[in-house]
Amino acid sequence: MDQEKLYRLFTKVSNGDLSPDSALKLVQAESYVDLGFAKVDHGRRKRLGFPEVVYAEHKTVEHLEQICLAHLEVHDCLLLTRLAEEKYLQLKAKGIKGRYNPTARTLSFEPTSLESVGNILILSAGTSDLCVAEEAKETAQIMGNNVELITDIGVAGLHRLLDRLERLRQAKVIIVVAGMEGALASVVGGVAQVPIIAVPTSIGYGASFQGVAALLSMLNSCAPGVTTVNIDNGFGAGFAASLINNPVAG
Amino acid sequence: MDQEKLYRLFTKVSNGDLSPDSALKLVQAESYVDLGFAKVDHGRRKRLGFPEVVYAEHKTVEHLEQICLAHLEVHDCLLLTRLAEEKYLQLKAKGIKGRYNPTARTLSFEPTSLESVGNILILSAGTSDLCVAEEAKETAQIMGNNVELITDIGVAGLHRLLDRLERLRQAKVIIVVAGMEGALASVVGGVAQVPIIAVPTSIGYGASFQGVAALLSMLNSCAPGVTTVNIDNGFGAGFAASLINNPVAG
Amino acid sequence: MDQEKLYRLFTKVSNGDLSPDSALKLVQAESYVDLGFAKVDHGRRKRLGFPEVVYAEHKTVEHLEQICLAHLEVHDCLLLTRLAEEKYLQLKAKGIKGRYNPTARTLSFEPTSLESVGNILILSAGTSDLCVAEEAKETAQIMGNNVELITDIGVAGLHRLLDRLERLRQAKVIIVVAGMEGALASVVGGVAQVPIIAVPTSIGYGASFQGVAALLSMLNSCAPGVTTVNIDNGFGAGFAASLINNPVAG
Amino acid sequence: MDQEKLYRLFTKVSNGDLSPDSALKLVQAESYVDLGFAKVDHGRRKRLGFPEVVYAEHKTVEHLEQICLAHLEVHDCLLLTRLAEEKYLQLKAKGIKGRYNPTARTLSFEPTSLESVGNILILSAGTSDLCVAEEAKETAQIMGNNVELITDIGVAGLHRLLDRLERLRQAKVIIVVAGMEGALASVVGGVAQVPIIAVPTSIGYGASFQGVAALLSMLNSCAPGVTTVNIDNGFGAGFAASLINNPVAG
Amino acid sequence: MDQEKLYRLFTKVSNGDLSPDSALKLVQAESYVDLGFAKVDHGRRKRLGFPEVVYAEHKTVEHLEQICLAHLEVHDCLLLTRLAEEKYLQLKAKGIKGRYNPTARTLSFEPTSLESVGNILILSAGTSDLCVAEEAKETAQIMGNNVELITDIGVAGLHRLLDRLERLRQAKVIIVVAGMEGALASVVGGVAQVPIIAVPTSIGYGASFQGVAALLSMLNSCAPGVTTVNIDNGFGAGFAASLINNPVAG
Amino acid sequence: MDQEKLYRLFTKVSNGDLSPDSALKLVQAESYVDLGFAKVDHGRRKRLGFPEVVYAEHKTVEHLEQICLAHLEVHDCLLLTRLAEEKYLQLKAKGIKGRYNPTARTLSFEPTSLESVGNILILSAGTSDLCVAEEAKETAQIMGNNVELITDIGVAGLHRLLDRLERLRQAKVIIVVAGMEGALASVVGGVAQVPIIAVPTSIGYGASFQGVAALLSMLNSCAPGVTTVNIDNGFGAGFAASLINNPVAG
Amino acid sequence: MDQEKLYRLFTKVSNGDLSPDSALKLVQAESYVDLGFAKVDHGRRKRLGFPEVVYAEHKTVEHLEQICLAHLEVHDCLLLTRLAEEKYLQLKAKGIKGRYNPTARTLSFEPTSLESVGNILILSAGTSDLCVAEEAKETAQIMGNNVELITDIGVAGLHRLLDRLERLRQAKVIIVVAGMEGALASVVGGVAQVPIIAVPTSIGYGASFQGVAALLSMLNSCAPGVTTVNIDNGFGAGFAASLINNPVAG
Amino acid sequence: MDQEKLYRLFTKVSNGDLSPDSALKLVQAESYVDLGFAKVDHGRRKRLGFPEVVYAEHKTVEHLEQICLAHLEVHDCLLLTRLAEEKYLQLKAKGIKGRYNPTARTLSFEPTSLESVGNILILSAGTSDLCVAEEAKETAQIMGNNVELITDIGVAGLHRLLDRLERLRQAKVIIVVAGMEGALASVVGGVAQVPIIAVPTSIGYGASFQGVAALLSMLNSCAPGVTTVNIDNGFGAGFAASLINNPVAG
Repeated sequence: MDQEKLYRLFTKVSNGDLSPDSALKLVQAESYVDLGFAKVDHGRRKRLGFPEVVYAEHKTVEHLEQICLAHLEVHDCLLLTRLAEEKYLQLKAKGIKGRYNPTARTLSFEPTSLESVGNILILSAGTSDLCVAEEAKETAQIMGNNVELITDIGVAGLHRLLDRLERLRQAKVIIVVAGMEGALASVVGGVAQVPIIAVPTSIGYGASFQGVAALLSMLNSCAPGVTTVNIDNGFGAGFAASLINNPVAG
Repeated sequence: MDQEKLYRLFTKVSNGDLSPDSALKLVQAESYVDLGFAKVDHGRRKRLGFPEVVYAEHKTVEHLEQICLAHLEVHDCLLLTRLAEEKYLQLKAKGIKGRYNPTARTLSFEPTSLESVGNILILSAGTSDLCVAEEAKETAQIMGNNVELITDIGVAGLHRLLDRLERLRQAKVIIVVAGMEGALASVVGGVAQVPIIAVPTSIGYGASFQGVAALLSMLNSCAPGVTTVNIDNGFGAGFAASLINNPVAG
Repeated sequence: MDQEKLYRLFTKVSNGDLSPDSALKLVQAESYVDLGFAKVDHGRRKRLGFPEVVYAEHKTVEHLEQICLAHLEVHDCLLLTRLAEEKYLQLKAKGIKGRYNPTARTLSFEPTSLESVGNILILSAGTSDLCVAEEAKETAQIMGNNVELITDIGVAGLHRLLDRLERLRQAKVIIVVAGMEGALASVVGGVAQVPIIAVPTSIGYGASFQGVAALLSMLNSCAPGVTTVNIDNGFGAGFAASLINNPVAG
Repeated sequence: MDQEKLYRLFTKVSNGDLSPDSALKLVQAESYVDLGFAKVDHGRRKRLGFPEVVYAEHKTVEHLEQICLAHLEVHDCLLLTRLAEEKYLQLKAKGIKGRYNPTARTLSFEPTSLESVGNILILSAGTSDLCVAEEAKETAQIMGNNVELITDIGVAGLHRLLDRLERLRQAKVIIVVAGMEGALASVVGGVAQVPIIAVPTSIGYGASFQGVAALLSMLNSCAPGVTTVNIDNGFGAGFAASLINNPVAG
Repeated sequence: MDQEKLYRLFTKVSNGDLSPDSALKLVQAESYVDLGFAKVDHGRRKRLGFPEVVYAEHKTVEHLEQICLAHLEVHDCLLLTRLAEEKYLQLKAKGIKGRYNPTARTLSFEPTSLESVGNILILSAGTSDLCVAEEAKETAQIMGNNVELITDIGVAGLHRLLDRLERLRQAKVIIVVAGMEGALASVVGGVAQVPIIAVPTSIGYGASFQGVAALLSMLNSCAPGVTTVNIDNGFGAGFAASLINNPVAG
Repeated sequence: MDQEKLYRLFTKVSNGDLSPDSALKLVQAESYVDLGFAKVDHGRRKRLGFPEVVYAEHKTVEHLEQICLAHLEVHDCLLLTRLAEEKYLQLKAKGIKGRYNPTARTLSFEPTSLESVGNILILSAGTSDLCVAEEAKETAQIMGNNVELITDIGVAGLHRLLDRLERLRQAKVIIVVAGMEGALASVVGGVAQVPIIAVPTSIGYGASFQGVAALLSMLNSCAPGVTTVNIDNGFGAGFAASLINNPVAG
Repeated sequence: MDQEKLYRLFTKVSNGDLSPDSALKLVQAESYVDLGFAKVDHGRRKRLGFPEVVYAEHKTVEHLEQICLAHLEVHDCLLLTRLAEEKYLQLKAKGIKGRYNPTARTLSFEPTSLESVGNILILSAGTSDLCVAEEAKETAQIMGNNVELITDIGVAGLHRLLDRLERLRQAKVIIVVAGMEGALASVVGGVAQVPIIAVPTSIGYGASFQGVAALLSMLNSCAPGVTTVNIDNGFGAGFAASLINNPVAG
Repeated sequence: MDQEKLYRLFTKVSNGDLSPDSALKLVQAESYVDLGFAKVDHGRRKRLGFPEVVYAEHKTVEHLEQICLAHLEVHDCLLLTRLAEEKYLQLKAKGIKGRYNPTARTLSFEPTSLESVGNILILSAGTSDLCVAEEAKETAQIMGNNVELITDIGVAGLHRLLDRLERLRQAKVIIVVAGMEGALASVVGGVAQVPIIAVPTSIGYGASFQGVAALLSMLNSCAPGVTTVNIDNGFGAGFAASLINNPVAG
């Protein structure tokens, strides 16, 4: 809560327009529910324009169930990422609904009135990078973006990419998902004049060092306009692309 | 040149509306001038919506002079980055004009009719990070963006940042420049709902490893919406921010 | 005490040159019992003000049983860390009692007259970091400290932390447990004026490099007063915090 | 400013005991002076119990002069670290007084009524590590601690250390400064029962990797109670030791 | 398609010798079949002188089956690498034929009229490196090269290598496969005057860092003429050796 | 075969004292048996004073059986290292005898008339390092050395080591086995005046990086006389210690 | 000297066709001249088909002079690499002739009757990479190869490369020199069917880590046929390319 | 011995309570003299069989002078390593004698009656590695060993090494000094049956990473009997070789 708002509160309290108790409640308005092991954040949507995203990797099924229930009681929109299929099946058995994407490993609870805007293009270098690309796609879709995913257009088959030049230039933002040497980001950056979010993947072996080679390649891209997220972070790329393609009304 | 355009060319040639020679020239239209040691790219502006940016670090004064002259003959807008002050003075003595920013180490040739749009906010954690922040600012400005730079608001003095919350939320894109542990990106990402471009700097010592600590911190940011560029890459951050704030009319 | 010396003691006792009590004291004087595969250190408590802590990770159940029995014969206070649940169950079946904390993976034998002093606060960034935070808590508690653990207050939800400012400033020492980019340590260091022990955790993926990103972030913290322990070393943080909060009477 | 204090302010304002303007001023009381390129933080002393410490490495003499003047106008206590001797001489010529320690590379402005308490012991492994040890000493001294520095007692000459056992056990906190393999921290940790802050130094060559070997050694210390700061960070160690030895009255 | 060819097409179209449709088809002639999850590249053989090689590691059996069928419909030559034995057995059960090499983990579909030329020699340092050496051998063989593999002639038994000097000098290209310290590449490079392709393997432990020691050793070879491929990349070595030994008729 | 010997052979052949065939056979005398997948080296014992040591980790039981049989046909002394217990049991079932040490994971075939000389001392920091220490012990023993192993005397309990000073100074060579921070090597090097071979182990977690911390610590030891082998390389340490303690009669 | 040749020598000596002294001289025939500080290797040309190349970086002018004189007494062909201009000027002043290339930093003594064959193409991504590319060119030229160098055709300006497709496909071997993210090697590998030798350069900053990013990118190239040499190793690339383009007559 | 104790001794001597001889003996009993900035260790020779070696790199000329004088007053044998030539010249001007080796950068004060024993062989791969090899030689010589140094016999010219086989086998211990890929250690280890101490050097460029490639190569040597010291640590290798070749009479 910034000083200007604070000053207005003080003034109202001074004028008797607001009781001290009410003032404090307003400060707390952007608050959360404490589950003991986690805090479910109802103010987040308002603050960041998007409901909580739950990173499910290290959480137990019991905790995930409680978090889902606490959320869905208040909101109709929730995304779980890195949810292993077996955990999903256990959640489903407990009555937790939602759409599961086994490639992306996401569980989505989409608002009934979701409208999609804009034009996000996701390019995936190899079929092995698909799970990361799908995670980006699911994330961007639930945030209300039109998303198209084109797979298997790596640098080694350059003509496949060149066939798509017109399509590339129509996108408002492009996500490039690539492992191994990650050169696709630079090549796309050389032909398209839109923001490019590069996602290195851990696909590769030996001196790929679980995605480090692709990460370094993307960070050093000679094509300007390329920014990078963490290895395998499809979610982060989808989220950032959405902020660009579909800016939240402040 | 994509297939659709190509087909239209073939059709025109077939119809006799276009000679084979003219068709080839149209293909070459996005071309460049070959200086021997470098290729000055006149088509770049059209292709990428922005004139050539010259990375001056490893180039001789003689080469830089020739590149400047070749460019400025055709365009009124050019940016040299990483130009040491002594090289600038030599270029100036040779009659190369332009505005030099000694902190940013940039030489700018701005179009006479530059109009600025939008709202890019640059936050710099320490005074030592200023040269990188200034490079980002110069880059974004020459690309036609309104830019504001706020310095010295690191995480250790959190209240300085919290005072600016309202300002943060007004920006269309935020660039966060920070060395050492680079935590500022995460903190800003936690309170603002706009795209954040994080620039790690090489400021620090010991286990900062010339910016690696800040880079890893930013790549692993728990706040979504943060994307990262190379260490000390103020230019790249300014360029990407411009693509977001001021999308080129395709 | 090696076997040769031991044999000479036995001979003296046998000859009546030494009483059994005196012999035992001589053995204890050199402070440890040699189990063959390990030396149980009875003098440690006196030297370091705390009984042996057994790092159980690479030890067999048989060895752990013998170590526990040798200790508990003499002392009433012992801590096993990194004890997998299945090993615990085997020890329990063999009659080894004690309180097992499955999240912390610790087995505690607490003295009957344990009094707690002071005020240690443990902050945990994410629910996934809980096992490390719990290990720190168990360690500090068995060493006679009052400990409070607050979970899930990462940097991405800064307001959760700011709500606790008064609590932070009351602590005598704060342990900050965080994975990913580990920015929480810097933020806490910026608002609290007490010693802060930062524990990076291996939670994260990709360029977190199993905790290296958080470790570097914490080592480079721009907030003074932050010191760091090894990745996932909840025990070490709890131990050091205890030395600060509850100095041993020399 | 935490909620409790805030509530009290609201109450006072509500009761008419405080005008809205005065309330806002109280909020701003922990504030700073904006020099344009830096923000001089007058509230810091109150917030963190210590005046600003200025990291001088990357700052110009002009900026340092302005920062010093702004500070000393209000406070009598200031510390500059990593101040090269030539910069000091320039500051001195401009009339900036203070005590310069050329080994520690610190400039100290000590309060006239500085009283020292407690017992901090600094151990330095080799004569080459002296500059880091001296930086720790200067930091701890200006914060009001009794400090003793013992140099050149590395592990290779173990008897030198064993001669000091009694002294080690009297300290309230020990700072161990060591380069190369940094084993001194573990050895001291094995014989003393006080908090130990280990400072790896960049002294060494080859596989010392500018202090990484010592840093890893200290992080992995088998002796509990050892916490670590960044390579060559004498300031950080002195600051943390002071927080332990001389807790600020909250 | 380069400009010269393009100009000839334009000319033909202009002359009426070619319809616009036919011209476009010729451009597309080096094309591929889109399976949805992958693009099977029929033009590749013509472009690169060799049919698609499928990296099977991360692909499902279903996808591999479809890719094989799509390929074999058109060509008689196909190589799958990194195909686990269990996946092979599933493919076999589905009627996919071909020769499986369980050490190399390759599945080969060789043209009926495969003629082998030249002289590629593969040297393998230890029996543990055999799987990589065999992958190189299978790759080079299906590309029409005579290949000989000599195993277990590491540097520690130098006389074994010296016995083969004459054989080494007869080869047109030598592939050296070695793990641990990878010294074999330098030793062979010192006695043979042919191109040497070094393949580091992940065999080793501790400071071999899964092949990094061998990789660095080979990259720093004091013997000129040695070039290096990725760790464990037997396929890449065999492919490059084939390009040298058996240049494709342009 | 060196030039002097060669000259003598030439002279004998010239004198008719030796046929060309016999001369060649003498050259080949240091030869090996080729098993196809491996070369069993009968000349090794003569060349290096010790029979083949077989690194069993990546070899199949079938290959190990054949290698054992080929060896034992000619020699009575053979050592297999890194032999998993289950492989040993399979070899045993096939009639391969020998003494298996499950901690060291070695299979030893000792000559009937093995005489031991000298005085090798092995020190092991923790019980977890025992498998590496035992591998060193088995290696040195089969090479005819008197070996003593003292376990669990890490740096954290310095008094345990100081109790053994006299014993340390009697050894002809000391092997120090330690994980975590590996400080034991430096401490021993500071009190003993004999060659010290340091073996870092992979015991530890987090920033031990599977033994890298201990390795760097040992390489940077401030105590001269310490040399280092690969992480977990008990075999290499035992072998080198044997060359020092029991030099082969050239 | 291999066994077959040796046997023939033995036979000749046995027959009295050769004296033992002459036989030994023949063995020594591939010998060298010992300068004390270096051994000038006259047999090298015969053994490896090329005269000594002198790596001048760490050698004194005096040593370089002596090495040049010793060589040129016997041969007319010699190459010095990494020769700083100031050293060259000193050598020149001492009467050492030869052609100096200041960009490549090479000094060449070319045989009078040098004939060039084949077709080596060198591609350089940026003007900053030119010194490495020139070193490769000088090396390949003195070894008797036709070499063409095309500069400044990085991935960010893809159309520049695509214009050269026909030229690429005519080369017998291509050397790709690139810094930053090194993507050019993959792109060239995707369109040309000849051996490609990739040379990473140290051009870049931040996370390029002095060429590591480009090195990893090239090692992980998804385009087969790409092999890699050390960072900045233009000499090694030129040498290997020559072995491929112009095989030495065994 | 600290200054306070020293003062008490002086007082006693002054009072006639202690004879000067007894006082001196008391000082020597605690083995070192405290110079304030360093402790000169007179007991070291007795403890470790060798006088102090002074690592001169980071010490001032003034400190070095005092250390030399304090030593030479009592002993006739002292070694300074890493002494830059300019520092040596300053020491010389101050009257400090001794033999300076500018390649090794050592200053030696040798006992008049130095007798040399045994047989240490030092092999140096390239002329650039000479400074490290000379440091090893100087160290071993002052410790009373016969030392031979053979230079420039790298792996790329294998025949040079094979010519020396007989010499290699006569040594009691071999030191192998090599940069770049460090393969020489493995090759020597494969043909000699004596202890081999490998010294990686920082000679190389690019992926040699200042000696890391050679270090890893040596640590992973497939030839047993090889132990390794730190990069460029000629002193450590010479010291360890001396302990092997010339064991101190306990």
